[in-house]
Amino acid sequence: MDNLPVWAYRLSVAIEAAAVLAFALSGLLAAARKQLDAVGVFTVTFLAAFGGGTLRDLLLDQRPFFWVEHVHWLWLLMGLCVAAMAFMRHRHFEPTERAMQWPDALGLGLFAAAGVSKALHTGSPALVAVLMGVVTGVFGGVLRDVVCNEIPRAFQDHRPYAVCAFIGGWAYVGWWHWTESAAQAMMVCVAVTFGLRALALWRNWVLPAWKA
Amino acid sequence: MDNLPVWAYRLSVAIEAAAVLAFALSGLLAAARKQLDAVGVFTVTFLAAFGGGTLRDLLLDQRPFFWVEHVHWLWLLMGLCVAAMAFMRHRHFEPTERAMQWPDALGLGLFAAAGVSKALHTGSPALVAVLMGVVTGVFGGVLRDVVCNEIPRAFQDHRPYAVCAFIGGWAYVGWWHWTESAAQAMMVCVAVTFGLRALALWRNWVLPAWKA
Amino acid sequence: MDNLPVWAYRLSVAIEAAAVLAFALSGLLAAARKQLDAVGVFTVTFLAAFGGGTLRDLLLDQRPFFWVEHVHWLWLLMGLCVAAMAFMRHRHFEPTERAMQWPDALGLGLFAAAGVSKALHTGSPALVAVLMGVVTGVFGGVLRDVVCNEIPRAFQDHRPYAVCAFIGGWAYVGWWHWTESAAQAMMVCVAVTFGLRALALWRNWVLPAWKA
Repeated sequence: MDNLPVWAYRLSVAIEAAAVLAFALSGLLAAARKQLDAVGVFTVTFLAAFGGGTLRDLLLDQRPFFWVEHVHWLWLLMGLCVAAMAFMRHRHFEPTERAMQWPDALGLGLFAAAGVSKALHTGSPALVAVLMGVVTGVFGGVLRDVVCNEIPRAFQDHRPYAVCAFIGGWAYVGWWHWTESAAQAMMVCVAVTFGLRALALWRNWVLPAWKA
Repeated sequence: MDNLPVWAYRLSVAIEAAAVLAFALSGLLAAARKQLDAVGVFTVTFLAAFGGGTLRDLLLDQRPFFWVEHVHWLWLLMGLCVAAMAFMRHRHFEPTERAMQWPDALGLGLFAAAGVSKALHTGSPALVAVLMGVVTGVFGGVLRDVVCNEIPRAFQDHRPYAVCAFIGGWAYVGWWHWTESAAQAMMVCVAVTFGLRALALWRNWVLPAWKA
Repeated sequence: MDNLPVWAYRLSVAIEAAAVLAFALSGLLAAARKQLDAVGVFTVTFLAAFGGGTLRDLLLDQRPFFWVEHVHWLWLLMGLCVAAMAFMRHRHFEPTERAMQWPDALGLGLFAAAGVSKALHTGSPALVAVLMGVVTGVFGGVLRDVVCNEIPRAFQDHRPYAVCAFIGGWAYVGWWHWTESAAQAMMVCVAVTFGLRALALWRNWVLPAWKA
């Protein structure tokens, strides 16, 4: 991906920024609903945005973390939290959440692809790599909910979310084995994950529940 | 332990499998009681089975994790979760829990012995090694309960559980210093831990509580 | 700091001990309020005292942990827990908490300074180092509250606590860049953090909250 034309590079940066922002906002809203103070708001926002990738890197024993290499993201998140506490009111919560669904689905795909890719590069077996993709995409939200003292939404809302990343991760592994192109595999993974998540949102799919 | 006869090797594999299964089922039941969806069921089952060992390896900076080296266990746990969601009903919860008490006590001993052994091999002081044994045996259940938004059972049910692993761990350390045989020390640790836990279950022992 | 006179060395050890004790007691009281058993009391006490530094070392990939190098602290905490369960009654909780406010503020400063220092020595960028100082000083309490199934107090009590460590951390970084003396920077960091925390307690400062 080193020879991208400038417009493609800019587009990819913009997409990435939108995705991280969507994840961060999910944390910000959770913190706002719990009426946390400034410290709590920043921590939960941070966890929602970068907790999944950080947990993956801890498990894979990889350093530096994304947010250590890209410190500007920390400043951006702080600015976001300050702005939200100054200007965001309760009536903005729901529209924000709705508007974030699509960038969030994109973020799920991007984070999953990044996670699978990193895990494969460190020599993880296929299933472990796919699970690392899921951890990257989903466990930021899990940490957000644990800190907010809730059962993680990803574990109990019966909506396909982690499942989309799981299938997208296998698409990555399959395409990569077939073509040996990591760049293509990433795009396939993002497309499959995003597509499934979009379908799930649109068709209101639910996961199987326990029968009494 | 390299020169075990075949039957002994098979027996040890069967015991290990029963123990991991008991731990996994404790997660599965906790997830079922909280009505989690498929993603939550797998995650909590995984945490209960392998969370303790994973936390120990994170603390000791050891890789690869057990479940990365033995990926088939991940497939088995997934199969277990699917089967449970298909066939397990509410009336099965209690009998399963009762049936699991004994393999669970065995698992506590095996996990504690494995934890102490690994910590000693990486040069930990005796007390730290014993605590790593406790972490291996008990903190899978702690992570299970934290994710399920409960105060960990091991911290508040006033039943000797971690305490058995703690004493078993010291038995390991003592025997190992005395005989320098790690294999014997492991067996002593399992026997002491399992024996104490069995006694505690049988005699209904309780830990001291706070006085008002 | 290698050429300290004996009295200064003894004083610094006494201050450190008072600070760790204050952190440990915050865990002990939280565990007592939740009526945890002996295992829970020790774990929560340990997390409150050493959880923040351990999390920092996990993130920075540093070993050994403080409590592995100084195993006597683990024995001390165990003794503290046993003594507390034997002699501490409900009527002692509030006076203990009040008496601990000042050593706790000191501990916040010492832990923050230690965290910033360690992070800078491993080459972290300034903001990351400051955040590691905050993690060291504050996240022991966060882990304590997560395990006790509460939203972390540091995230919702609207009292400046982490914020004091954050500003103190910047004081460290600034002084260090200016004078290149880590020992001086540590003292400045402790003074600023402790001073701000003392002011916040004395003047009853509150952090900004969400407006409805």
